[in-house]
Amino acid sequence: MKTVEPNGWVFTIPEYVPGRSKEEIARQYGTANPIKLASNENPLGASPKALDAIREAMAVSHLYPDPASRNLRTAAARFFGCNVEDIVAGNGSDEIIDLICRAYLKPGDEVIIPSCTFSYYRIASLACGAQIVASPMKDHCIDITGIEAALSPKTKGIFIANPNNPTGTYLKGVELLSLVNAVPENVLVVIDEAYGAFARANDYLSALSLTQSRSNLITIHTLSKSHGLAGLRVGFGIASKEILATMLRIKPPFNVNILAQKAGEEALNDDIFLKKTLSNTWDSLDSFYASFERLGLSFVRSQTNFVLVHIGKDSPRVYEELLKRGIITRYITNIGLDEYLRVSIGLPKENSVFIDALEEVL
Amino acid sequence: MKTVEPNGWVFTIPEYVPGRSKEEIARQYGTANPIKLASNENPLGASPKALDAIREAMAVSHLYPDPASRNLRTAAARFFGCNVEDIVAGNGSDEIIDLICRAYLKPGDEVIIPSCTFSYYRIASLACGAQIVASPMKDHCIDITGIEAALSPKTKGIFIANPNNPTGTYLKGVELLSLVNAVPENVLVVIDEAYGAFARANDYLSALSLTQSRSNLITIHTLSKSHGLAGLRVGFGIASKEILATMLRIKPPFNVNILAQKAGEEALNDDIFLKKTLSNTWDSLDSFYASFERLGLSFVRSQTNFVLVHIGKDSPRVYEELLKRGIITRYITNIGLDEYLRVSIGLPKENSVFIDALEEVL
Repeated sequence: MKTVEPNGWVFTIPEYVPGRSKEEIARQYGTANPIKLASNENPLGASPKALDAIREAMAVSHLYPDPASRNLRTAAARFFGCNVEDIVAGNGSDEIIDLICRAYLKPGDEVIIPSCTFSYYRIASLACGAQIVASPMKDHCIDITGIEAALSPKTKGIFIANPNNPTGTYLKGVELLSLVNAVPENVLVVIDEAYGAFARANDYLSALSLTQSRSNLITIHTLSKSHGLAGLRVGFGIASKEILATMLRIKPPFNVNILAQKAGEEALNDDIFLKKTLSNTWDSLDSFYASFERLGLSFVRSQTNFVLVHIGKDSPRVYEELLKRGIITRYITNIGLDEYLRVSIGLPKENSVFIDALEEVL
Repeated sequence: MKTVEPNGWVFTIPEYVPGRSKEEIARQYGTANPIKLASNENPLGASPKALDAIREAMAVSHLYPDPASRNLRTAAARFFGCNVEDIVAGNGSDEIIDLICRAYLKPGDEVIIPSCTFSYYRIASLACGAQIVASPMKDHCIDITGIEAALSPKTKGIFIANPNNPTGTYLKGVELLSLVNAVPENVLVVIDEAYGAFARANDYLSALSLTQSRSNLITIHTLSKSHGLAGLRVGFGIASKEILATMLRIKPPFNVNILAQKAGEEALNDDIFLKKTLSNTWDSLDSFYASFERLGLSFVRSQTNFVLVHIGKDSPRVYEELLKRGIITRYITNIGLDEYLRVSIGLPKENSVFIDALEEVL
């Protein structure tokens, strides 16, 4: 029987493996109230201002959302310190990554992606028929020399998460500038700053300030982590007029949900919630570092809201034992992290329960 | 200066022109509280059960949504009478259209689209580099003879809205069956039933019952109209296992917002709201028909929640005069409807205000 033939590359796309949900773990292990430290969600919940906005906006759930996400983008422009015209809003930053790929990539183009980074860059690039060129990591850090060496006449784009997920490391400002200067102007440089708000290293540099002077640079941002809106799906791309005009051609008209637009707008105005979030994140990381040292575990210092801890060959067993105790962390295989667990920061109480359980199962 | 070259087809995508918003018209014309009969939204608002669900689900706005939209799809399976495994959920039915195109189309493929239909089929197909073959209409109806004549060895897919937007007409069951039987098995047949719930013609046939016996057929559904959730973005694709498996490869992991999943699930269980919606829709259409006849205006009988009314060469002026009076209808150019206005049904009061204003400005 003849069937409809897919486009020739859709089956090269690997499956995205999400963090396991509380419901799933509660069902499988019979644990009452699992603690999820697996998806870098905000343990403080959502910004209260955002929740108020949802309560108010519910009454217009039956109307189409603003295709331009105008009010949301206006709040984002103020927050990020750029012009509203430089911003495109998406259904999460995943959609921003998709729009970039769909606007620029064609089958056969090459995309450089560090070998240990957020998996969606690979997924979105393969979904457009592009070829992935994996650049090597160096001590869990993105290595700009490796990226530069991977450039070829077929390179159409480079994806860099800064800070990087799942390693928590970052590119120093001088490295970022050096890379941006080394990349030809006809190669797109995508700097994903999903975790940018959490970076506290003095020599971290957001690429935001560079987007207006470089026609080949785009930064990506999300309200999923720092603003506690992972469930609502709000992301942004910020770039030059040329890139924005291209992406707007391919942006679906009603991509950002009406409640997400209102919640995102108010979350961006909620300085108090952001301060609490950063304070809880940094305190939690410091407390994790101290505990790991006490337990004799090495770890990778993080500029994000999660940390990679080295468990060794035993990590699959430790991961499972933690699950049995109702604690969900992330065990990521196939990208050089087989001896590590990635642990999102939680509330102080949740962090303690995790550390106690870890000590018990080691 | 060199710049990054887009993929070669992104600038062939036409802009989507949405219905004008109440805010925009209020600002432009200084009207206090405009009536929007332009986007086929549900004038009764959202299902109250859906709103209750949002109120309850708000507390988990900071968690990632279920990638599989399991509970939402379970409710949809019951509603549509199919298996949960046969359904993919999307960020509105627009995303379902996108996923179909992104999974199956490659540059150079041909897609047959009737010349007067929902514009997003064209947009999504061009976004994948496909060529559009426009099939002719016949008396505002989709003409299956025209579609069959447009088939070529390069045809990869056919988009059919049934009932059709923006004409409100439908394919009879025998026509649908005849078309499905005539199309080769290696050509995808997409039947968009966004307005299917409103169809009251005895010889209307949903293609849902055919999806399991045809490996090349997919139906599309939305909660935007019949269930009043346009702002929340919930759509479905229902198809054979082959098509589903292909689309799931390209579906972004967190495409449906967590509040949209919960609201959609409850809306699908709200039979009372759906009954009220259908009753208001059919009463409104009958009252529009009677008024148009009284005013000597011809119109196209509709199986949807909107109607095309023939105004004549004067339609741009009538459209503008209605806007000045705070009534937003839809004037669609370039697809053979220049002498018509498309008017969504409203509440009885809104319908009367529209008819009175129309009588005044004619």
